[in-house]
Amino acid sequence: MVRFFAAKSDISDTMIKLSAQDASHIRSLRLRPSELFIVCDGEGLDYICRLAATRAQETGDVFAEILEAGSSLGEPSVRCSVFIAFAKGDRLDYAVQKSVELGAHDIKLFPSERCVSVPGDISKKTDRLQKIAMETAKQCGRGIVPEITALDSFKSAVGLAVLADLPLFFYECEKKLGLGAALDQRTAYSTVSIFTGPEGGFEPHEAEFAQAEGMLAVSLGSRILRCETAPVAVLAAIMLHSGNLA
Amino acid sequence: MVRFFAAKSDISDTMIKLSAQDASHIRSLRLRPSELFIVCDGEGLDYICRLAATRAQETGDVFAEILEAGSSLGEPSVRCSVFIAFAKGDRLDYAVQKSVELGAHDIKLFPSERCVSVPGDISKKTDRLQKIAMETAKQCGRGIVPEITALDSFKSAVGLAVLADLPLFFYECEKKLGLGAALDQRTAYSTVSIFTGPEGGFEPHEAEFAQAEGMLAVSLGSRILRCETAPVAVLAAIMLHSGNLA
Repeated sequence: MVRFFAAKSDISDTMIKLSAQDASHIRSLRLRPSELFIVCDGEGLDYICRLAATRAQETGDVFAEILEAGSSLGEPSVRCSVFIAFAKGDRLDYAVQKSVELGAHDIKLFPSERCVSVPGDISKKTDRLQKIAMETAKQCGRGIVPEITALDSFKSAVGLAVLADLPLFFYECEKKLGLGAALDQRTAYSTVSIFTGPEGGFEPHEAEFAQAEGMLAVSLGSRILRCETAPVAVLAAIMLHSGNLA
Repeated sequence: MVRFFAAKSDISDTMIKLSAQDASHIRSLRLRPSELFIVCDGEGLDYICRLAATRAQETGDVFAEILEAGSSLGEPSVRCSVFIAFAKGDRLDYAVQKSVELGAHDIKLFPSERCVSVPGDISKKTDRLQKIAMETAKQCGRGIVPEITALDSFKSAVGLAVLADLPLFFYECEKKLGLGAALDQRTAYSTVSIFTGPEGGFEPHEAEFAQAEGMLAVSLGSRILRCETAPVAVLAAIMLHSGNLA
């Protein structure tokens, strides 16, 4: 079923006001009156709807009639925050799209010493990535639209990441602790931070700082993953480990 | 260390003849005579080398002097063959690049009923993807260059896929067996087939055929992964499960 998101303020007991963009999307799909679609409140609640017969005369607003409500099935039981260092080209687009597909709860971008590219206009960049997150969340059936935010420093990123039950700092110079062992160390976790570096990896002093603050330095094995691949691989692995790939 | 691949026939006990392309790459890197690099034989053996002082006068061939040899560290212990249905645009490029990073042994493309795009010139497509595989194998430190082949039918793809210890057919209509449970069913596996569909998924009769031939129909959970994301997510999950992400 096609899927849309609506703000809670646009949802009443029986009707949902659709955004102009979604209304136009529905028109382009040429849905018949009997065809159903889903409107999600972005907080984990799905409404099965059909197009309401009438529209608001004055405003032209289009409404969906609620037939049934229930929890979104697309939300994993584990809450993963993905911290991605700024990267160049379309790498962030890719990392955001795939992270949303694989169940990331939110995505935070941060600067790191070896970043080859920090966007000049950060709000333009996050707006663009937020749109990608929205489109992906619709397509893959998420119950929330993961929020994309840009942090202004490496230290503030670590400060947030460390709050998770499992704060994982992926560092290619780490040779002892692999991801599998790190996950097995803490079998009961409900929040995870996945912290991955830029194209050239982290500086040693960044890794030291993160560990001193309480993050676990973790290796991803002997192959070197590209900066846009690492968060996606980790998310997939954690979803398997936490029973969310089934 | 920078990494190149050489044909076994170009490797002697003490010297390796570099391809014209690699020689030109080394020139562009301006390596000093003391700087080391790796030449891999593409069969899991790495040679630590330095640039030989002399080059062949007649041919202009450039040689690497072998200092040390040892097994490539970049090969996982489990051999995953990835079967990907033809897909449009750059989705195959992406799927191949990420599959090589995550340790795929080989990648096979196949037609499936809902494929929206099967390339007209298949050998041109596989050549292009083989180049992507080669570049990625160099960058991420693989000991082999995964071979890309195109198969001419869905049935021949199933016929090959079913030979693995764990022949996994990812099917979005499968509701019972998740990936985690499928992996736990067979704890000792050394070969895996990862079989994923095109943009619109598999036809029910394709899934029935694959299961009748002995493949396991497996679900990837409640979120719908894009066709280029599914093989990458599965590879990451299997690498974690088999102890190859550490």
